[in-house]
Amino acid sequence: MSDGNPTAAILIIGNEILSGRTQDANVQFLARRLAAIGHRLEEVRVVPDVPERIIRAVNELRASYDNVFTTGGIGPTHDDITNECVAAAFGLPLEKHPATWNMLANRLGENFNASRQRMAMMPRGAKPIKNEISIAPGFSIGNVHVMAGVPNIMQSMFLSLVTELNHGAPILMRAVHGVGVREGSIAAGLGAIQQKYSTLDLGSYPFYGANGGGVAIVAKGTDPEALEAAIREAGALIAAQGVTAIPGEQAS
Amino acid sequence: MSDGNPTAAILIIGNEILSGRTQDANVQFLARRLAAIGHRLEEVRVVPDVPERIIRAVNELRASYDNVFTTGGIGPTHDDITNECVAAAFGLPLEKHPATWNMLANRLGENFNASRQRMAMMPRGAKPIKNEISIAPGFSIGNVHVMAGVPNIMQSMFLSLVTELNHGAPILMRAVHGVGVREGSIAAGLGAIQQKYSTLDLGSYPFYGANGGGVAIVAKGTDPEALEAAIREAGALIAAQGVTAIPGEQAS
Repeated sequence: MSDGNPTAAILIIGNEILSGRTQDANVQFLARRLAAIGHRLEEVRVVPDVPERIIRAVNELRASYDNVFTTGGIGPTHDDITNECVAAAFGLPLEKHPATWNMLANRLGENFNASRQRMAMMPRGAKPIKNEISIAPGFSIGNVHVMAGVPNIMQSMFLSLVTELNHGAPILMRAVHGVGVREGSIAAGLGAIQQKYSTLDLGSYPFYGANGGGVAIVAKGTDPEALEAAIREAGALIAAQGVTAIPGEQAS
Repeated sequence: MSDGNPTAAILIIGNEILSGRTQDANVQFLARRLAAIGHRLEEVRVVPDVPERIIRAVNELRASYDNVFTTGGIGPTHDDITNECVAAAFGLPLEKHPATWNMLANRLGENFNASRQRMAMMPRGAKPIKNEISIAPGFSIGNVHVMAGVPNIMQSMFLSLVTELNHGAPILMRAVHGVGVREGSIAAGLGAIQQKYSTLDLGSYPFYGANGGGVAIVAKGTDPEALEAAIREAGALIAAQGVTAIPGEQAS
């Protein structure tokens, strides 16, 4: 992969993923959006709603990556503990964010009870991330960006945040596939292409479908010409197996 | 949560998840199956196909949890490096597993080339995990269980492995929901129920749908009577909002 791109990690705070109750729907959205702005997503972690686990993960990830995006745990209920854990991770007091407090107080009136007031508590110095869907914002503190877990709310927050992030060269993907190719038959040739195009990540992904199985070769990187060349060579490998090399990935 | 249940982590070795190319389909399957055999899934990590990252994650996770389940990176291509990384994490030589080598040699004949031979290399002392789909096995070494990333192959491997794992008391879920309830309105009462039933994990999950939004309350734990009681009390909280408490989770 290209150097010079900012790195990123996602921290999912979510018992509901770990229990199998919920299928995560945030990683793929964020992964694609981050690639588009040139952030290399290098790690995803899912941790339970346990303070010491969240605090440790926040601190490990923010020390390791340029940006950390958290999802989940910012609502009004007892299991929403992200705000206080992020404050603790940074060693900052958790305090009323006045503009958020006033906005929620105005919108909610007498319903702005003690539970909902927790949504206006942020680490000192945090900057809100706008929420177009359900009003209560996320926030950024340092290189950590705290967002909701509900997908459409998270997406609203990320789209508001994205203009604030530094952008690197977009990370592009190109692919080619062949039906009937076996991975083991093209592995040696593929390894040689990866060595030749060392700034790219070349992946080999078998697929299995009603219309027959095969292999998709996916190249990822910031250099469009290198991507085209590597995928052209991968296509030639597939063709050398007596199989049509089809641009893009299989419809699955 | 109950103590005494074995703990587990999932390590996904997968550039294809981090690039957003692929939507993970393994966590939810494993999470549910692990809960059924009483394993508490406490962490999921996704790391790229980079040796030092895989080795470090394997070592951190196997030191922290009773069992670690890895998915991905065990095929014949250059980006399949899980076997050698797990061996390195354990400080064990990677060597031919004779029974696997012989089985693949017999099945593949002259197609058992150098690339495919890599699938018969395991850390010394590893025990194969049967693969009913595409033959090449995964393996267990110590408390680390190495499986394929392709979902149906992973599932075949896990179902073969599951009889070898120690089983704890099944971790059960019960739920109740109400359409039109707002989280912030029941948060205080819900916090009190969580305190009362401290062996359970009580989660509150807002939902948004064409037929109206609401909240689902989900309790998780090993004590069926406590689960029923907690969910009954959560249902009473919902009913006190003038809303019908409906057993189970909303159809979404």
